[in-house]
Amino acid sequence: MDASNKHEDAGKTLEAQAKAFFDSAPPLHNSHKISQDLNHFIQHNSSSLENGEARRIVCVTSGGTTAPLEQRCVRYVDNFSSGHRGATSTEYFLKAGYAVIFLHRRGSFQPFCRSLPDDPLLECFEPTNDLNIQVREAYSEAVKRAYMNHHTAVEGCLLLKLPFSTIFEYLQMLQMIAISMRCVGPRAMFYLAAAVSDYYVPWKDMVEHKIQSGSHLLDVKLVQVPKMLSVLRKDWAPQAFCISFKLETDSSILLNKANAALDKYNMHAVVANELLTRKERVVVVTSAEKITVLRDNSESANDVEDPLIKLLSERHTAYIEDSSR
Amino acid sequence: MDASNKHEDAGKTLEAQAKAFFDSAPPLHNSHKISQDLNHFIQHNSSSLENGEARRIVCVTSGGTTAPLEQRCVRYVDNFSSGHRGATSTEYFLKAGYAVIFLHRRGSFQPFCRSLPDDPLLECFEPTNDLNIQVREAYSEAVKRAYMNHHTAVEGCLLLKLPFSTIFEYLQMLQMIAISMRCVGPRAMFYLAAAVSDYYVPWKDMVEHKIQSGSHLLDVKLVQVPKMLSVLRKDWAPQAFCISFKLETDSSILLNKANAALDKYNMHAVVANELLTRKERVVVVTSAEKITVLRDNSESANDVEDPLIKLLSERHTAYIEDSSR
Repeated sequence: MDASNKHEDAGKTLEAQAKAFFDSAPPLHNSHKISQDLNHFIQHNSSSLENGEARRIVCVTSGGTTAPLEQRCVRYVDNFSSGHRGATSTEYFLKAGYAVIFLHRRGSFQPFCRSLPDDPLLECFEPTNDLNIQVREAYSEAVKRAYMNHHTAVEGCLLLKLPFSTIFEYLQMLQMIAISMRCVGPRAMFYLAAAVSDYYVPWKDMVEHKIQSGSHLLDVKLVQVPKMLSVLRKDWAPQAFCISFKLETDSSILLNKANAALDKYNMHAVVANELLTRKERVVVVTSAEKITVLRDNSESANDVEDPLIKLLSERHTAYIEDSSR
Repeated sequence: MDASNKHEDAGKTLEAQAKAFFDSAPPLHNSHKISQDLNHFIQHNSSSLENGEARRIVCVTSGGTTAPLEQRCVRYVDNFSSGHRGATSTEYFLKAGYAVIFLHRRGSFQPFCRSLPDDPLLECFEPTNDLNIQVREAYSEAVKRAYMNHHTAVEGCLLLKLPFSTIFEYLQMLQMIAISMRCVGPRAMFYLAAAVSDYYVPWKDMVEHKIQSGSHLLDVKLVQVPKMLSVLRKDWAPQAFCISFKLETDSSILLNKANAALDKYNMHAVVANELLTRKERVVVVTSAEKITVLRDNSESANDVEDPLIKLLSERHTAYIEDSSR
């Protein structure tokens, strides 16, 4: 698992680094099925009308990617992310009239399921007198609403859910989605809330079997993942409206990092958020302004994603109008 | 995150290494509540009778532990483990008359829920004509059985579920459980199916904030986790019947590794299993014999854990009888 190609990579252009990443990645399972589902979803939604206009499509990425340390993966470096931001935002994008491709980490939070307990099956039911089970009164409305909203979105072809685990799966699927969405032009949005690995072990450098634990010290050398945000903006989906996220635990460097990301990746906006206050407050950083978005805390059920998605949807409208001039 | 104390640690006795690990670990949340629940569970079960004898208690560990790379944890090294082995084994231990302490990774497989789809809430229901929802016919028996079995075990004080995520939480809880179970003597069993991190970054060596991703290469140095199986056997629960697991992807080294673990940690048995065939076949390695246990594949619903737990339960009976002589 030594990163023997480190010096080689550092001098390469970004395009060459991206190509090397994809060439060496393990092939994506089910890529034919994913491609079919994607094309059907995009065709259906780009030809259907919402208030007399073609529907907008957003790709929401959600949850963390893993970087395997072994080919037959036992150990991996993971990024903490519950997927709460992506799942919640998906609900508000649907409410705002978008069709949503929800590219999410397997097992992370799902849209419409946030108000349910961790283990809904075991906690939402109770036994009845006739040896049967029923949904508990306290959860009955929440379970019904979760099921109905989810069912309506999926059956109505407004929500397409695609799961990933590794950084290899995530980037291969993001590329497929971006290229499939080119036909949507500026009506496409990327809302990149996933916590994507910064470092990985290239597949060909990886040991095949489980790392043996004989020695007192384990030294893991990882190389930087090519900065695919730039490639997405420049090559994969140059017309799409692109939002990325910057999460830090240290507030003193957050806005500078967000500004740097805006410039470096040429994003339309970067949503800056801090780990401890991320459900209360985010700052939307664009080249022209910094807008603080706060959760309306008059009711505990309110989400910061409600005003955030309203703001981004308005900016997207302006962007579409600008593009057509 | 440099492991500056590596040379220091290598020369220490195991007891000193274990002490250093616990002294430097972040304090366990809810330790008072966990301790209360544990004591109540153990008292209740050690005084209740099963066929005229005090009930046996097994601690089943399940799922993988994480080793955080940052104190405010964004990145961590994780061990792949669905928790399927531990969840399934728990069902068979309950069937065999044991009370089970299920020490499991948060979000891993739960006992009695294996036959349900991944996302039971969204997949098990269907809308009714009167704008309500009901359990789908195809899942109705499975949902009812899952709920009822789980409910009966928890309400009957036969199943205590304790969740962990990090290696720090896991080892602190395992120590609490082992010490609380001393009073049960040889009627206690440890069935250690969790995939426990071999390496970690000591808490005090860890950076507080998120690692910055400026440089091309990330070099993560981890030190070996003290071999707590030895400490469990020798100090925490010297009278308990102890089973550990050895999972490898390389079959050529599996049995040697299992034998080595048996000797090194003084286990009563080691269950050897290979990643690709782990649901079909395991080998129980004791100092006297190697017993291959196969899934009865006459029915697809059969589990290899069924004959495995029967065998271990018999061996445990013999161990209890030997201990009382």
